[in-house]
Amino acid sequence: MEYRRVKDQIYDDLSQKDVESLSGRTLSSANTTAIGPASAGGAKANSSWKLKSVVTLALTLLTSSQAILIVWSKRAGKYEYSVTTANFSVEALKCLLSLAALFRTWNCHGVTDDNRLTTSFDEVGVYPIPAVLYMVKNLLQYYIFVYVDAPAYQILKNLNIISTGVLYRIILKKKLSEIQWAAFVLLCAGCTTAQLNPSSDHVLQTPIQGWMMAIVMALLSGFAGVYTEAIIKKRPSRNINVQNFWLYIFGVIFNLVAICVQDYDAVMNKGFFHGYSFITVLMILNHALSGIAVSMVMKYADNIVKVYSTSVAMLLTAVVSVFLFNFHLSLAFFLGSTVVSVSVYLHSIGKLQPQK
Amino acid sequence: MEYRRVKDQIYDDLSQKDVESLSGRTLSSANTTAIGPASAGGAKANSSWKLKSVVTLALTLLTSSQAILIVWSKRAGKYEYSVTTANFSVEALKCLLSLAALFRTWNCHGVTDDNRLTTSFDEVGVYPIPAVLYMVKNLLQYYIFVYVDAPAYQILKNLNIISTGVLYRIILKKKLSEIQWAAFVLLCAGCTTAQLNPSSDHVLQTPIQGWMMAIVMALLSGFAGVYTEAIIKKRPSRNINVQNFWLYIFGVIFNLVAICVQDYDAVMNKGFFHGYSFITVLMILNHALSGIAVSMVMKYADNIVKVYSTSVAMLLTAVVSVFLFNFHLSLAFFLGSTVVSVSVYLHSIGKLQPQK
Repeated sequence: MEYRRVKDQIYDDLSQKDVESLSGRTLSSANTTAIGPASAGGAKANSSWKLKSVVTLALTLLTSSQAILIVWSKRAGKYEYSVTTANFSVEALKCLLSLAALFRTWNCHGVTDDNRLTTSFDEVGVYPIPAVLYMVKNLLQYYIFVYVDAPAYQILKNLNIISTGVLYRIILKKKLSEIQWAAFVLLCAGCTTAQLNPSSDHVLQTPIQGWMMAIVMALLSGFAGVYTEAIIKKRPSRNINVQNFWLYIFGVIFNLVAICVQDYDAVMNKGFFHGYSFITVLMILNHALSGIAVSMVMKYADNIVKVYSTSVAMLLTAVVSVFLFNFHLSLAFFLGSTVVSVSVYLHSIGKLQPQK
Repeated sequence: MEYRRVKDQIYDDLSQKDVESLSGRTLSSANTTAIGPASAGGAKANSSWKLKSVVTLALTLLTSSQAILIVWSKRAGKYEYSVTTANFSVEALKCLLSLAALFRTWNCHGVTDDNRLTTSFDEVGVYPIPAVLYMVKNLLQYYIFVYVDAPAYQILKNLNIISTGVLYRIILKKKLSEIQWAAFVLLCAGCTTAQLNPSSDHVLQTPIQGWMMAIVMALLSGFAGVYTEAIIKKRPSRNINVQNFWLYIFGVIFNLVAICVQDYDAVMNKGFFHGYSFITVLMILNHALSGIAVSMVMKYADNIVKVYSTSVAMLLTAVVSVFLFNFHLSLAFFLGSTVVSVSVYLHSIGKLQPQK
């Protein structure tokens, strides 16, 4: 449970090495190929496509290893650390990784308008909004369990897919083709199908309050994701690590408040890192890296790619778990995976046709 | 079980009234609108579209009421009639209905080359082939239950969808667009998902012999369907009722042989109609009418439309059963229905785009 909460909370943020190697690689490829405008344009499109692929792949792999760590930690037994300190550590680690990437950029390319850390209220004023949205969503999460149990909540969480698609269309005003919309509905249905188990049917008995809260939570989560994309994309030339630093600093502050309100006594008596194990550290590292990967996907791709990436990660996790933990895949999983695969295919061929 | 076997066997054959009203309607509309070539072409396309829609709707409604009759008959208790006599009655009734429709056509429009009953060996020589294919498939059906139980067989039967699509492409050389192929895979996955129940997972433990037989049966059934379409479409102007008569007469002969081999003693001792109830008669009527509907769909539409029609019928049955028999719909059913609906949508929009 705890790990899942950590996982839910921090779904808005690549490995520091990835960040550096990526920015290094694109800059150098842009420099070396800037001979004529046409070839520079081609190289730019090519490097943008590469960047998009690398961050998407990184997010997929990090998300799937995240779930595997959850299973591993469950097998390893109970974990008794405080969730608020883990969340704080994730946010702080993301800040540190962003700063480290920035230092490297400053050393290599000098300080420019785009990569300086100083900012204006105009730029940074909207940065706390996603953090607040996620906080409200996480508070609601405690109350939804009055009406819905954990396995049913896992099923209802797939509403996020639909809410992200709808808000992406409404807020970012980006269009998806008819086929891509159909693909998105299929993604939601396929993911849910893949998660079906013999007891899933009781989701249908969820009371109206549970449904309302699940829908509100899906909207909050979708809105936070789309809003983060809007903030990051508003300044395309701005260095992503500066944007990430300011995004995460609010996460640090909010989680510090949460520690004071919720776990002050425990932290004071038992210490900040009480109950931390090797696996706790691994999970914090994984959450920080996948948080950064989410930010990179928002910058270089979009929320739709993020949703596809995390959905495919869910399926990858299950397949890897077969080998690691002797999991048995259900017929529902095969059917759901087929539908998700067709959805990914339709999303990609849907792009080729201009919308009528 | 018995009813299901009847249902499987007779999946290659509209209500006599429908036949008459349809042929009457198209002929009169063609007569009254044949003023200029352009308007005649438009009217023809329009009446062809109408005809296609009516036969598809008829097939969907008849197929869904078929399954409801099965449930009703199961509720009504055991049925102890002989399956071979029921199959024979269905085939004989289809012949009689085709003849009755023909008599009406002859009375209204006179005997022409297209609607005369006499035929050549060249025309009729291939007509027994679908009947033989169905017979082999039905024989295999007895042996597959050595390896697979009935609920697993219901799941495996969805392989028919894939085999029909593949054979439709290979034998009839008709092309489906990329999107329509994707839609077809979704139709199969969606139908299977809708039929999932907590015990469905043991399908995955089906031994290799069971899989092989299921695949061979799917290919036989798909081939019989595609072959019937090829036979009927080979002579587009030939009256469908004549084609049906010759198609069904072989069904009558084969089923007569089956009675002699399998149930000769029982029929001789207890009588031909022993164990028949009101519901048996209703089911025979329904099977005969839906058999004729299948032939009409083959003539005026195609196997792909037939597969969509029977799949949508499966979902309709479940929804109607909620009201009639207090059935509970599972989450898997909702997810499967969503996938099937998206599949139908994709199949229709896929048509609009010419294949690249």
